[in-house]
Amino acid sequence: MDDRIEVAILGATGSVGQRFVQLLAGHPWFRVAELVGSERSAGKPYLEACDWRISSAPPQEVRSLTVKHYEEPLRSTIVFSALPGGLAGPIEESLAAEGKRVFTNARDHRMDPDVPLMIPEVNAEHAAAIERQRHERGWRNGFIVANPNCSTIHLVLALKPILDSFGIQQGIVTTLQASSGAGYPGVPSLDLIDNVIPYIGGEEEKIEQESRKILGRWVDGRFEEAPIVLSAHCNRVPVRDGHMETVSLKLGQTAAPADIARVLADFRARPQELELPTAPRRPVVVLDQPDRPQPVLDRDAEDGMASVVGRIRTCPVFDVRFVVLGHNTIRGAAGASVLNAELLLREGWLD
Amino acid sequence: MDDRIEVAILGATGSVGQRFVQLLAGHPWFRVAELVGSERSAGKPYLEACDWRISSAPPQEVRSLTVKHYEEPLRSTIVFSALPGGLAGPIEESLAAEGKRVFTNARDHRMDPDVPLMIPEVNAEHAAAIERQRHERGWRNGFIVANPNCSTIHLVLALKPILDSFGIQQGIVTTLQASSGAGYPGVPSLDLIDNVIPYIGGEEEKIEQESRKILGRWVDGRFEEAPIVLSAHCNRVPVRDGHMETVSLKLGQTAAPADIARVLADFRARPQELELPTAPRRPVVVLDQPDRPQPVLDRDAEDGMASVVGRIRTCPVFDVRFVVLGHNTIRGAAGASVLNAELLLREGWLD
Amino acid sequence: MDDRIEVAILGATGSVGQRFVQLLAGHPWFRVAELVGSERSAGKPYLEACDWRISSAPPQEVRSLTVKHYEEPLRSTIVFSALPGGLAGPIEESLAAEGKRVFTNARDHRMDPDVPLMIPEVNAEHAAAIERQRHERGWRNGFIVANPNCSTIHLVLALKPILDSFGIQQGIVTTLQASSGAGYPGVPSLDLIDNVIPYIGGEEEKIEQESRKILGRWVDGRFEEAPIVLSAHCNRVPVRDGHMETVSLKLGQTAAPADIARVLADFRARPQELELPTAPRRPVVVLDQPDRPQPVLDRDAEDGMASVVGRIRTCPVFDVRFVVLGHNTIRGAAGASVLNAELLLREGWLD
Amino acid sequence: MDDRIEVAILGATGSVGQRFVQLLAGHPWFRVAELVGSERSAGKPYLEACDWRISSAPPQEVRSLTVKHYEEPLRSTIVFSALPGGLAGPIEESLAAEGKRVFTNARDHRMDPDVPLMIPEVNAEHAAAIERQRHERGWRNGFIVANPNCSTIHLVLALKPILDSFGIQQGIVTTLQASSGAGYPGVPSLDLIDNVIPYIGGEEEKIEQESRKILGRWVDGRFEEAPIVLSAHCNRVPVRDGHMETVSLKLGQTAAPADIARVLADFRARPQELELPTAPRRPVVVLDQPDRPQPVLDRDAEDGMASVVGRIRTCPVFDVRFVVLGHNTIRGAAGASVLNAELLLREGWLD
Repeated sequence: MDDRIEVAILGATGSVGQRFVQLLAGHPWFRVAELVGSERSAGKPYLEACDWRISSAPPQEVRSLTVKHYEEPLRSTIVFSALPGGLAGPIEESLAAEGKRVFTNARDHRMDPDVPLMIPEVNAEHAAAIERQRHERGWRNGFIVANPNCSTIHLVLALKPILDSFGIQQGIVTTLQASSGAGYPGVPSLDLIDNVIPYIGGEEEKIEQESRKILGRWVDGRFEEAPIVLSAHCNRVPVRDGHMETVSLKLGQTAAPADIARVLADFRARPQELELPTAPRRPVVVLDQPDRPQPVLDRDAEDGMASVVGRIRTCPVFDVRFVVLGHNTIRGAAGASVLNAELLLREGWLD
Repeated sequence: MDDRIEVAILGATGSVGQRFVQLLAGHPWFRVAELVGSERSAGKPYLEACDWRISSAPPQEVRSLTVKHYEEPLRSTIVFSALPGGLAGPIEESLAAEGKRVFTNARDHRMDPDVPLMIPEVNAEHAAAIERQRHERGWRNGFIVANPNCSTIHLVLALKPILDSFGIQQGIVTTLQASSGAGYPGVPSLDLIDNVIPYIGGEEEKIEQESRKILGRWVDGRFEEAPIVLSAHCNRVPVRDGHMETVSLKLGQTAAPADIARVLADFRARPQELELPTAPRRPVVVLDQPDRPQPVLDRDAEDGMASVVGRIRTCPVFDVRFVVLGHNTIRGAAGASVLNAELLLREGWLD
Repeated sequence: MDDRIEVAILGATGSVGQRFVQLLAGHPWFRVAELVGSERSAGKPYLEACDWRISSAPPQEVRSLTVKHYEEPLRSTIVFSALPGGLAGPIEESLAAEGKRVFTNARDHRMDPDVPLMIPEVNAEHAAAIERQRHERGWRNGFIVANPNCSTIHLVLALKPILDSFGIQQGIVTTLQASSGAGYPGVPSLDLIDNVIPYIGGEEEKIEQESRKILGRWVDGRFEEAPIVLSAHCNRVPVRDGHMETVSLKLGQTAAPADIARVLADFRARPQELELPTAPRRPVVVLDQPDRPQPVLDRDAEDGMASVVGRIRTCPVFDVRFVVLGHNTIRGAAGASVLNAELLLREGWLD
Repeated sequence: MDDRIEVAILGATGSVGQRFVQLLAGHPWFRVAELVGSERSAGKPYLEACDWRISSAPPQEVRSLTVKHYEEPLRSTIVFSALPGGLAGPIEESLAAEGKRVFTNARDHRMDPDVPLMIPEVNAEHAAAIERQRHERGWRNGFIVANPNCSTIHLVLALKPILDSFGIQQGIVTTLQASSGAGYPGVPSLDLIDNVIPYIGGEEEKIEQESRKILGRWVDGRFEEAPIVLSAHCNRVPVRDGHMETVSLKLGQTAAPADIARVLADFRARPQELELPTAPRRPVVVLDQPDRPQPVLDRDAEDGMASVVGRIRTCPVFDVRFVVLGHNTIRGAAGASVLNAELLLREGWLD
């Protein structure tokens, strides 16, 4: 008998939706009970509705699930949302109003003043904003918890231990982002054969703004942004999965590269203490080879749930510089939401 | 009758050597008279010695030239060097000692205190160092003039007009560099299929150091470095040709993006005044589409001799940020040397 | 004063349309007078309407041309059509009915029993079908002449000289086709990073059927197909431009690889005799290096108008096997139509 | 206590060697006890000696093993060889003479008249040649068993069930082979960015010849080749792993595509009966989507040990045509050898 908690996945046939399905199939606490899609998919078995693009075929246990339409009622109280930005906002709100606990990867509510933008290793205490959310919006049990943008998550995981130990004043970041970040069909192949694109709409603003909220504090019932100024340059490169970022930081106090490496490698937080099922053993993996991390070799470190840092060295302009890499659709999207749900379950928010 | 000046190309069968051949075939002032290679190539006709990789076949006029060995004497007094770093140094010196005017793309002599590291649009006046070179080294007519590293050239072409108008204090640069920068065979395909490499040996130091020399002044018989601090992060991406760089700059005085765009687009210098054959009409091309420049579309602007700048915008950390792209084996290597030779010819240094 | 003949280009903003613009800008006989597009483009200057993707920017002379809508009347009597299949058919017919001479790259009318499917080097005499076309359809001056599918053209250019000298009974062909064959946005990048796709809808049938028509004869007022049986396997590979095809042929009589190489290299036909402006000097270029042709090196041979053949060797199953490569949007599309127009102009069909 | 049989891996630091390490780490019957490499690696711990390129780091259990030199004596009696062709031959022979059971991926002994070229599902009975090998070469316990070339294995796995049910007379095959087939550094990136290479030295001959041996019989103490004539065209494409092949076959008797699909999907043989640890549940996986198999989606089917067939359809020239894909370094190399060893262990040849 399967006594796992039933969960629903919104946007289940898209790129991030497929990752949710992959990560939740066989999950020890959650069972994929409902897959929700658009008109094009609804009413069909998942195997047929979905152009599965992660491996040869979707997990056995979800193949014959009939895809539901967004307007059909859901019985699951935990809902993961892989809906596209814009569409996500109102659907997620009305689900929360109905009492659903919505864990969303969509951008729509990320910067709302009462929505936790959560990375469990970084700001687990932001869950407190759920109280205000419920109070102000009149939601009894439901809530919305968002995870950050894919490139923001990996940047912030690398910034957090440095911030805590040495302070961070400014940072300049350049991303080399994978094609899967744009979904499917996403970026045309003619844009990425013998080419890179120095632009991803809205991405630079997300990195610059979301980071300040995540690294900030929840005090007196409101978010106080961290006083860190970031500048991001975002690029698309011909890589399937794995966002890479070069980072130069001005710290609050000086720190040698070896000190930075140590605080990153030693970083552990709530998910590790609680041994959450999806939590990486090491949230930040530090490599010391001169030419690492690389997407194809390192994106799957800790099953895609780690941020991998390398090339930690002194910056002639600021204090320190390094490279961070992470899987953009696992820890950078679906895995981030799953970890949020695991944390809130263990901390009693889903009772 | 062909009364063009005979020139020799060292390392003529390699990647950069092939670009020299391509650019000098049909040149109005210079005629490719001698092609020089290693033991493996010497004695064979160029068509056979060279695995030509720019197009279907090398230019007609060089196909049957017999490749000479490095140790054979050369009759040309103008010598272009595409020799690999390390090998280049002593060969170039002994040629200069014999009276050859050596225009080199190799790194060996770039930072010598008496060798001009020249970009004609930027520091034509550094040619004066030739005097010291001849005097100190006891060379009568010969000299060595170097062009900078491929990514440095395009960066500096974009920095120069900004420096002159607004001053530059600091800059943080991340490069996305093409495979051809590593020559052939160069980077293994397994490193660049579904991957990028966050490391290019020695490249970051070159950008940081060469820029200061180039943008500095020749005063009182010595180079005075420009007081600009740069930090570079270098990456290899799956692109054939065209280095792209994201740049954030702290200026000496404030300037709106539109002002930056104007000084870049209006930039003209000696090569344009003299209408040198290889000089781009516009050394810096400014694009205003949000997703440009792109390697595959823009690397051939002005026949590969321009630096193409786009995405000029305010930097939240410094003052301004933008993207610069340029062809790494044309303006970034062979074309740079050819333009140096054209300038020095017109300015009387080759008499 | 410009006394070139005015021409119109339908579908001028798409992939093939851009190639038409590129090839016809500066054409000695034709002048691009009208650019025609969809609602989205109509009314705008071409520079603005078109996301030009061949180089940094469209040719100077067309940038400010205002794009017309399909329903606006055209003054040019020569019309090049880069319309997508399905949309093309009726528009081309009504233009022909108005008296326009339509040279189309679309598939819609290729297999019509009264439409020449023309490659000037192969079946120039099929132009005679225009008479029947005009007679049966009641068109006075107008007509439709189609060029074949991109992979068919290069295959047939290689087959024709072999057929004429040795006969061909059967052939098995596998294509490795470039991304640009699917237009823009076309194939998603996630389908072509670290991947190939063994399927191109409708392509295998086109190769198998069009070849028989092209290589057949126009006798007694109708097309008689060539009795050649072909089997095609079509694949999409991560290449920008240039379709490559492996070919095994059962001949009518035995022929050594050297004989095949000779008839291919010696092949010349009407366009070469007439020295048509777009005609390649050599319609088939034969290479003897063991690893050629390659897309990136050889697709631009003869300015993209040649088919490049290599690896001619004995086939253990049939008689001979080889590789053929050609530029799919130049000789394989826009250039094919332009050459058709040049031929028909010189042969008096446009009077 | 670990009572698994100790095995050695020759060429352990190379591409195929790494796959051996990956597949044998955690193997239920074998334990990696000895890793053997060249002078460059010998004496170092594997972690340091090896530029591991399959994932972030080699399996824990082999990291600290000290790499041995080829000339050091080995204690393991089972030896897997990932040595490069040419080097492999004499080393493998002298090991067999010493009593080692050598399972080799190298080409050197594949076509020897007394060496089984084995695919357990296809020609398990060829093991009988070991008797002749021992007898003629004077080896007491040692032997050499080879696995075929990577593209041959997947082709033959697809041919075998068809041959058994319907007979095969002729076949024409075109491969699209992955970069990893050439090892590391292998194919230069400049050869595979925006390019494919229509040539792989020696590969076509291997496919044509090895297939006849594998599909033939061992009768009266000698190999009798199968009377099948194949013609192969081999191409390198920008794919990391996974060789794809288009195949057209002339059968012994007619068969509908559905019949072919059935015999392929139903194919089971000795490794499946014996439930060998590395044996795929289904040696041939049949897909019915029109655009499959694809390398990135299907190469890992059955953990990389299956050949995946799709697009089974009638061939206008022969009888049937289809596409087959398989992982070239798992089932196509290291996994093939491991499965051979498992089979021979279970069948008593290793006693």
